[in-house]
Amino acid sequence: MKFESLKGFRDFYPDEQSARRQVFDTVSDTARAYGFDEVAAPSLEPLELYEVKSGEEIVNETYSFEDKGGRHVTMTPELTPSLVRMYVAREQEMSKPVRWFALPKLWRYEQPQSGRLREFYQPNFDIFGADGVEADAEIIATADAVLSNLGLENEYELRVSHRGVVHGVVGSLDVKDKQATAVHRIVDKSERLDENEIRERLEEIGLNDGDTEAVVSLTRIDGWNSVGDVLELTDEEGTHEAVERLGALDAALEEYGVETVFDPSIVRGMDYYTGVVFECFDTEGDLRAIFGGGRYDTLVKEFGGPSTPAVGFGIGDATLELLMKQANVWPDEETTVDYYVAVIGDVRPTATRVAEYLRKEGNEVEIDVTGRGFSGQLEHADSVGAAETVIVGERDLEKNELTVKDMETGEQEQVPLEEYVD
Amino acid sequence: MKFESLKGFRDFYPDEQSARRQVFDTVSDTARAYGFDEVAAPSLEPLELYEVKSGEEIVNETYSFEDKGGRHVTMTPELTPSLVRMYVAREQEMSKPVRWFALPKLWRYEQPQSGRLREFYQPNFDIFGADGVEADAEIIATADAVLSNLGLENEYELRVSHRGVVHGVVGSLDVKDKQATAVHRIVDKSERLDENEIRERLEEIGLNDGDTEAVVSLTRIDGWNSVGDVLELTDEEGTHEAVERLGALDAALEEYGVETVFDPSIVRGMDYYTGVVFECFDTEGDLRAIFGGGRYDTLVKEFGGPSTPAVGFGIGDATLELLMKQANVWPDEETTVDYYVAVIGDVRPTATRVAEYLRKEGNEVEIDVTGRGFSGQLEHADSVGAAETVIVGERDLEKNELTVKDMETGEQEQVPLEEYVD
Repeated sequence: MKFESLKGFRDFYPDEQSARRQVFDTVSDTARAYGFDEVAAPSLEPLELYEVKSGEEIVNETYSFEDKGGRHVTMTPELTPSLVRMYVAREQEMSKPVRWFALPKLWRYEQPQSGRLREFYQPNFDIFGADGVEADAEIIATADAVLSNLGLENEYELRVSHRGVVHGVVGSLDVKDKQATAVHRIVDKSERLDENEIRERLEEIGLNDGDTEAVVSLTRIDGWNSVGDVLELTDEEGTHEAVERLGALDAALEEYGVETVFDPSIVRGMDYYTGVVFECFDTEGDLRAIFGGGRYDTLVKEFGGPSTPAVGFGIGDATLELLMKQANVWPDEETTVDYYVAVIGDVRPTATRVAEYLRKEGNEVEIDVTGRGFSGQLEHADSVGAAETVIVGERDLEKNELTVKDMETGEQEQVPLEEYVD
Repeated sequence: MKFESLKGFRDFYPDEQSARRQVFDTVSDTARAYGFDEVAAPSLEPLELYEVKSGEEIVNETYSFEDKGGRHVTMTPELTPSLVRMYVAREQEMSKPVRWFALPKLWRYEQPQSGRLREFYQPNFDIFGADGVEADAEIIATADAVLSNLGLENEYELRVSHRGVVHGVVGSLDVKDKQATAVHRIVDKSERLDENEIRERLEEIGLNDGDTEAVVSLTRIDGWNSVGDVLELTDEEGTHEAVERLGALDAALEEYGVETVFDPSIVRGMDYYTGVVFECFDTEGDLRAIFGGGRYDTLVKEFGGPSTPAVGFGIGDATLELLMKQANVWPDEETTVDYYVAVIGDVRPTATRVAEYLRKEGNEVEIDVTGRGFSGQLEHADSVGAAETVIVGERDLEKNELTVKDMETGEQEQVPLEEYVD
């Protein structure tokens, strides 16, 4: 009987995995360049870990079940709760700030579609224990470095806001809690709506004319030059602080050479964000938001730790792949080996020694294990992407020689056996 | 509220993860040296994938559940079924033999104990499409290379047998199917039993005296010199072939410089093994079997593919770690950065440029994001394992200089700023 994988889950064959491995290596190298240390968390956690702050949407979209011991468990849908749990468990013995990155697989029970899968990788970066704008800037600069090290240039844009902006403006409206949540949601989606649609939706939820215009004005603000305009819509102190913080962030990011755009419609779905939030947008195609992150200063405390500021982001691999392919910077999907050792005739002991020697010298080497004919071996060498084929044959060996074939040019030369054995 | 991870699941903090990453890198490098290409499979598969051949034990010990769409799914307890599924799906377009390795996380609902966890990593190596002893030898040589590249020498022993040995001897006994299974199990466990215990158990399941002695004789055989003794216990043709194959394997492995031991008690639990089987034993401590593998020539066909020989092995990370620690070759558990950039006074723009320059030059760099005092920064630099601290201070900058402190010797020197910025 034949089997299929589950919908929304991917099989990675060698060619594709080779490209993906290159991407993950670049992500890891960038993380280390920015002083992040790798950590890893379980793929299964108690369900309660997600009931605190992840938001209902996440809990409803998880692979949650009861294990054989009756525990309610969840396949990790996001990494932050696990990281915060880990941070709380050992925070006393760690010198702050702590910079962690991880490369987890995550799972969500969602309707699979382009860029959204039920199983995905999500490189994660977090700084715990630094509340300043310097840490916000460092996190956003790291996100930018990941993208530019992957070869992306103008194909993306980092859009930045602060929860205090939308909170302040919505807080100044004459609305009830439920309406406020709905306004947040409309602001969050406003980038995809035109002004009339925004106005209609706000009226639908019962906003008065003045409040409707205030929110529409907010969504009209775009770019660092107009960040001060937010203050015309509210005099909440939190918004003043947010605007000041955003100004400092813009200045700090300039020192990194990182350009960002102020966009008050950046809200981020997660309930736990408290300050600066950002999203990476596709500027050339229609992928829209690729990933995002932000500051979450209350989560550590809510998880039983001491009050600890934190800021981070995670990049889902599926949308990243779409963005990179669109920009033609996805690595070539191909596998190679340095040498294929062809075994022609009764020469296997010598051929084995040659393969082992080349391996010890640091090469990637495949040796024939089939005993098939010469042309079959050469064809296979070609199909596995061998750069060179070392042909170990009976007649050559009588002269203590091997034949080395350059698989690209097709050129062959005789070489002394002693150069290819220990 | 505070949360804990699930029993049998591990959190990896930076120090430990750094060691683990080095181990996995060595495993991957060795895989590539032997011509294996990396693949990756889903972590969740349809339950039915494990109902074919994995054996009841595995199916009972899995994290299996019904997903929100009513599908019976299982968190992958072993990789082989997924690999065979993947192989069958694309075998027509692949040049054989196919060499695959993978570094999956796997899950089993077992009682956690030393070296046995509910979540573990298991590097996996397989060759599909080669039926000869050359492929058996190549797989065992790869396993040996992994261990020796990890720094292990005499602390392990590879013990080898062939399913045809125990099948033939048991097939020659006067026993029913159920007894035969029980005999297999006793042989499998015989390494941990003395001769009287073996004899007792065989009598318990109802073997006659002659058969009991035959099985006891089998378990007494040990080492390549006595492999021929197996033929005194049975004249089954399969056993003759097995003994011949084992002789050829021993000879082939000699060419690799890989020493193994013939041990007829090596049976391997998995139902799907068909030929050569091997296990790695701890020779110095009491860890016993560390991992194993073998030939499974019927699984591809049972999964709906064309008849295809295959041979492979997987190494669980938990026992490997115990073995390496016992042998004092587990990597140092510590993290480092190349540079810590200390920011003293109103110099952040310059400090940022210094950090960014060093990062672009390929270094791992942490920069202060707290604005705390000099001694606090230096202490942190020390605790993150910085090799050097670049001190960016107001007074130095007036002279266009920086101070670089070697964190090991404590020596400091003034350097021109221009050497540390673009």
